Amino acid sequence: MRPALHSVNPPPLTSQAAQDSTARMNFASDNTSGLPEPIMEALIRANEGYAAGYGAEAQMDALRDRLRRLFEAPQAEVMLVTTGSAANALALATLCPPWGAVYCHELAHIEVDECGAPEFFTGGAKLVHVAGEDGKIDPEALDETLAQAGRGVVHHVQPACLSLTNLTECGTRYSVAEISALSAIAKRHGLPVHLDGARFANALVAEGCSPAEMSWRAGVDVLVLGGTKNGLLGVEAVIFFDPSRLWEAQLRRKRAGHLWSKHRFLSAQMLAWLEDGLWLDLARHANAMGARLEAGLSQRLLFERGGNMIFARLSGTAHRQLQDAGAQYFLWPDHQRDPDHPTVRLVTSWSTHETDIAAFLARANAAP
Amino acid sequence: MRPALHSVNPPPLTSQAAQDSTARMNFASDNTSGLPEPIMEALIRANEGYAAGYGAEAQMDALRDRLRRLFEAPQAEVMLVTTGSAANALALATLCPPWGAVYCHELAHIEVDECGAPEFFTGGAKLVHVAGEDGKIDPEALDETLAQAGRGVVHHVQPACLSLTNLTECGTRYSVAEISALSAIAKRHGLPVHLDGARFANALVAEGCSPAEMSWRAGVDVLVLGGTKNGLLGVEAVIFFDPSRLWEAQLRRKRAGHLWSKHRFLSAQMLAWLEDGLWLDLARHANAMGARLEAGLSQRLLFERGGNMIFARLSGTAHRQLQDAGAQYFLWPDHQRDPDHPTVRLVTSWSTHETDIAAFLARANAAP
Amino acid sequence: MRPALHSVNPPPLTSQAAQDSTARMNFASDNTSGLPEPIMEALIRANEGYAAGYGAEAQMDALRDRLRRLFEAPQAEVMLVTTGSAANALALATLCPPWGAVYCHELAHIEVDECGAPEFFTGGAKLVHVAGEDGKIDPEALDETLAQAGRGVVHHVQPACLSLTNLTECGTRYSVAEISALSAIAKRHGLPVHLDGARFANALVAEGCSPAEMSWRAGVDVLVLGGTKNGLLGVEAVIFFDPSRLWEAQLRRKRAGHLWSKHRFLSAQMLAWLEDGLWLDLARHANAMGARLEAGLSQRLLFERGGNMIFARLSGTAHRQLQDAGAQYFLWPDHQRDPDHPTVRLVTSWSTHETDIAAFLARANAAP
Amino acid sequence: MRPALHSVNPPPLTSQAAQDSTARMNFASDNTSGLPEPIMEALIRANEGYAAGYGAEAQMDALRDRLRRLFEAPQAEVMLVTTGSAANALALATLCPPWGAVYCHELAHIEVDECGAPEFFTGGAKLVHVAGEDGKIDPEALDETLAQAGRGVVHHVQPACLSLTNLTECGTRYSVAEISALSAIAKRHGLPVHLDGARFANALVAEGCSPAEMSWRAGVDVLVLGGTKNGLLGVEAVIFFDPSRLWEAQLRRKRAGHLWSKHRFLSAQMLAWLEDGLWLDLARHANAMGARLEAGLSQRLLFERGGNMIFARLSGTAHRQLQDAGAQYFLWPDHQRDPDHPTVRLVTSWSTHETDIAAFLARANAAP
Repeated sequence: MRPALHSVNPPPLTSQAAQDSTARMNFASDNTSGLPEPIMEALIRANEGYAAGYGAEAQMDALRDRLRRLFEAPQAEVMLVTTGSAANALALATLCPPWGAVYCHELAHIEVDECGAPEFFTGGAKLVHVAGEDGKIDPEALDETLAQAGRGVVHHVQPACLSLTNLTECGTRYSVAEISALSAIAKRHGLPVHLDGARFANALVAEGCSPAEMSWRAGVDVLVLGGTKNGLLGVEAVIFFDPSRLWEAQLRRKRAGHLWSKHRFLSAQMLAWLEDGLWLDLARHANAMGARLEAGLSQRLLFERGGNMIFARLSGTAHRQLQDAGAQYFLWPDHQRDPDHPTVRLVTSWSTHETDIAAFLARANAAP
Repeated sequence: MRPALHSVNPPPLTSQAAQDSTARMNFASDNTSGLPEPIMEALIRANEGYAAGYGAEAQMDALRDRLRRLFEAPQAEVMLVTTGSAANALALATLCPPWGAVYCHELAHIEVDECGAPEFFTGGAKLVHVAGEDGKIDPEALDETLAQAGRGVVHHVQPACLSLTNLTECGTRYSVAEISALSAIAKRHGLPVHLDGARFANALVAEGCSPAEMSWRAGVDVLVLGGTKNGLLGVEAVIFFDPSRLWEAQLRRKRAGHLWSKHRFLSAQMLAWLEDGLWLDLARHANAMGARLEAGLSQRLLFERGGNMIFARLSGTAHRQLQDAGAQYFLWPDHQRDPDHPTVRLVTSWSTHETDIAAFLARANAAP
Repeated sequence: MRPALHSVNPPPLTSQAAQDSTARMNFASDNTSGLPEPIMEALIRANEGYAAGYGAEAQMDALRDRLRRLFEAPQAEVMLVTTGSAANALALATLCPPWGAVYCHELAHIEVDECGAPEFFTGGAKLVHVAGEDGKIDPEALDETLAQAGRGVVHHVQPACLSLTNLTECGTRYSVAEISALSAIAKRHGLPVHLDGARFANALVAEGCSPAEMSWRAGVDVLVLGGTKNGLLGVEAVIFFDPSRLWEAQLRRKRAGHLWSKHRFLSAQMLAWLEDGLWLDLARHANAMGARLEAGLSQRLLFERGGNMIFARLSGTAHRQLQDAGAQYFLWPDHQRDPDHPTVRLVTSWSTHETDIAAFLARANAAP
Repeated sequence: MRPALHSVNPPPLTSQAAQDSTARMNFASDNTSGLPEPIMEALIRANEGYAAGYGAEAQMDALRDRLRRLFEAPQAEVMLVTTGSAANALALATLCPPWGAVYCHELAHIEVDECGAPEFFTGGAKLVHVAGEDGKIDPEALDETLAQAGRGVVHHVQPACLSLTNLTECGTRYSVAEISALSAIAKRHGLPVHLDGARFANALVAEGCSPAEMSWRAGVDVLVLGGTKNGLLGVEAVIFFDPSRLWEAQLRRKRAGHLWSKHRFLSAQMLAWLEDGLWLDLARHANAMGARLEAGLSQRLLFERGGNMIFARLSGTAHRQLQDAGAQYFLWPDHQRDPDHPTVRLVTSWSTHETDIAAFLARANAAP
């Protein structure tokens, strides 16, 4: 059975009650935050005068250079789009033909939360589940699934690529070693690797490694470097470590309506975000707030915290008090089965305040 | 993990050894047989003179009338194509939008053996597995899966239809009551029902019910009535019990290159097949041969026999002797794990002879 | 032969020469401009605190209400995306099935400049050219084309919708009466009407009519109200005058990766743009600058000016001087045939200054 | 304006009047005929015993060898399907990406008569018209169209392949020299060439050249060798002179539901058709009947006859007499404009009798 991660409770649980005067307990997602000041300032600076559009602006060249240095990948190519779904789907479409199979975890965002975007962009490929605990693909399961995949048999969709997500949908984290191991299996079976890095920065600072180590050195061929969940307006970089994929990807982007005419506003944001490691600082803050949340909760988490997203089981009393106080978060489907101990997903972001955490914990740890 | 039903052993196991002089132990599939005499004669008769093409021939009108009477469905519409994959994919495309989900068993032919045809014809829909033993969807699992499917939430593909297969891929059979129960659940969730009836005739005569009872009266909205596996050259009827679906389906058929110009040769075959119950006689014979095979095997079957397809575990010795003698059948994937007791799929057809069965059993029951 | 509008000269003609100290002769497109101050301020205001995403923010409700009042269409539904290609393609996909035909001018943006986005989003529909002078569809040609379109014949794609563009790609303008006449023909043949309004505001103020008069009252079913070319960052509203189309459109938007998580920044921009008629003022300014350009040119325009875009034939001398001075504009393909009298496209925008015009005219009218 | 070739009169004009006792004036299409005796006999022979399916039968190997020798192309690969639309669309899908343009004549079957099959199979490519008289692409127009096609500009669909048809839809014929000239232009622009050879045999015998001369030696990369219109039940061979295209094509065929399980019946037919030059004899007969029709008509043809299809303008009186006598043929759209002199399309086939011609001419030449 395919789980529908968010589906039981699509709209965030907004209480009508007055919010705390000082705290804003918004843990619904890291995309409910706005932009930090340096990003807004970059937008304002980018607004000067005229600029050629469609990615031909000078800032895009600067961003490409910056990312190449950062990732120690002088040949890499970069393409910007404004949503993670578009970035993932475009990346996958360059890796997987219409008759191909993308191997992913059953909880992967591309499988559950993109309304079939990968199927649309690829022209009808199939997403095949690979088992694994805690949102992480199990290496043995991957190997066995690929071994039985029917490569070369015309009746079956053909194995095309592996898709990983880091941080995962369970908030857990693949280590560099784990990514390398999964990539090695994929490559042994002839498959390139896509990494959905909507929370790449959070994973990176938690893992304490370099961008290269968590991407191409670990076998990743196409990385979606997410900015939106970490302080940007709507900017995701698709980084192709094999530059030959770029032209097709650019045509697909245009054809999908994802090539911005006023593209300078995208490149300017990401440049400012990379400046002086701002993106890492933002992610470190988000992770630190996640750690504080974990430390303060009297309950054990459902999954090992990988960065800025945790899952915990609250008491029904605590849940109601939080709702009344205006706290925002999503419930997991099993809530329906046990309303007395609802499982909640809590996401911290660059803009989470310590007061938000304190206000939340004061209620979350209430007696059952 | 998604099983690849046939994949470990795609080509039939053809032995180079001489075949028995009298027996042809071909149990690879019911589509390795040819045409019974009345069908070939119908082809010869249809070859007289000229005929309007593309389904506008008089015989197609006659066939439509015949099927309406047979199914007690005076409004039903009919469309012919030449393969089961085309028939299923066209039927599903009329039921499921690009952003829809087709609910099916993980072993369903549409999921495993059509190289993504449903995804192609629908424009990228998703096939969602529903659990169940022995190739049959479990009603509770269906209900729970649909309850959690995220209807109305824009992030998720939307539930669109239920797809059943009878006989199933495990050779088991849904009873009329079981189809009705599953259809009722689907309809409670607003979904129409597709029935892949590649072996509808085999199921029908085994169940001993009327065509209407196993289709629209049990809640089936679109039936693929398979002829190819039961004696035709390559003819499948897509029967729409809701006639309003026909025009879209016809456009999709043409657009998919499945509208035959010399269409009279398709309608003529199926007319002859329905004449005097020939189709049922052919299916009865196939089932009877399956029963004889079951009865003669010293091993227990893996699944309850629903008609003309059984699965059994042979000894390695028996398997090798059968291969040497030129027997044809497919192995199941678990063969790889236990070469000493390979699991084999055996399919009988309208053309299976008793001598074929006897020749097979003589070797299959050989001492381990 | 299908003309490729921009293709001979894809990158804007950027001179390496120093630009005039006071003038910026950028007439390449109205999307090379940035944002006017009130829009940037709206972005800054929208950045306060947290907001539910994906269009569920309160500002989106306010925008919907605002547009309904503005268009006198209390039932209309609205959906925001960030590019015109996405807006058009999504709109067309709700009007045209995969086997449908979209009737448009051969110069239409959807045909020439979107890399096949309509074909992608519709699942493979066909764009059929309708003849007409000056970028405008000829009513008789439309009627005749539709009369011969093969409706009801399964071999042909089926007429699905009419697509108009106002302002047209030639910078001309359909009057309200002309739109009404074309819509009436379309509707007589059973087709709904899409209006690509990338420059709707420019057409509106030039025509001096109400938004309702240039849209649903003239028979338009789905309007793309373009903001990007008229001062927004990347915001286009798809307005469905038939609200029943919304849900499908929303699913298609999500599936295409065009649903923004930080959606508040889109709705906030458009709200500010509509406030106190700012959008009309911006368009009026752009048109006035176009008029000034027209008035100052010693040459006659190729097409009647409809708003803020004109085409003129320069002398080779003037062209070279303009290039040297850093002027930006596109050439039409026939430039290749006559380099001594290149045809240029000049687009003015909300940010065009009178000094820019003066600087341009001083060179453009240079002796041959 | 895009002409809809058959659309004014989709169903063949079947008269209710009694047919001549000896003549059957069926000139509607060469696909209203049945099968010549050797083909039916081949079907009967193929019906012996069991055979592996899905193209793995021995006869398919024999057919591949036969075609390689016949086309003097020892590396060529072959794939069978049952309709011309499927064959063309599959061939084009291997040559043209979703963002590509197929260049063809505006009257091409792929453009007019396949309900968008090429768009479906390619995933939304665009068919671009190239001008030319009499159904034949003009070399200069092709060169100019390709020169302006916007290759390398991301806003435009990218030139992908040239598609020719021989015989053309006007019944005219490209000479080997003409095909070579067009192919050379295509290749200079980097495009491979597809030849829709639904009536390849008719063109071949009329041109008096070898199969190689009219295909790969003239620059054709993928040939659809049509059998259906020349005596087969529904068999078309897609011949890839570049064998590397085969595997993708086979996956696309399966995915489109065009891989027959009882494939032996397809290969057997085409083997018999090639035996002793039967296919050429059938085509020669059809052409000879076309020549007799041309010779006997008192009117001049609209286009130069290339083989077995002619267009002529009848008097209204003759048309009515023919209808009353049960003659079958299609009208061209301009019939509506001049019912007194309807333009008719007349197609002869392998089964046309001299008596049919005589009966037709006796009425067609009736006084106005």
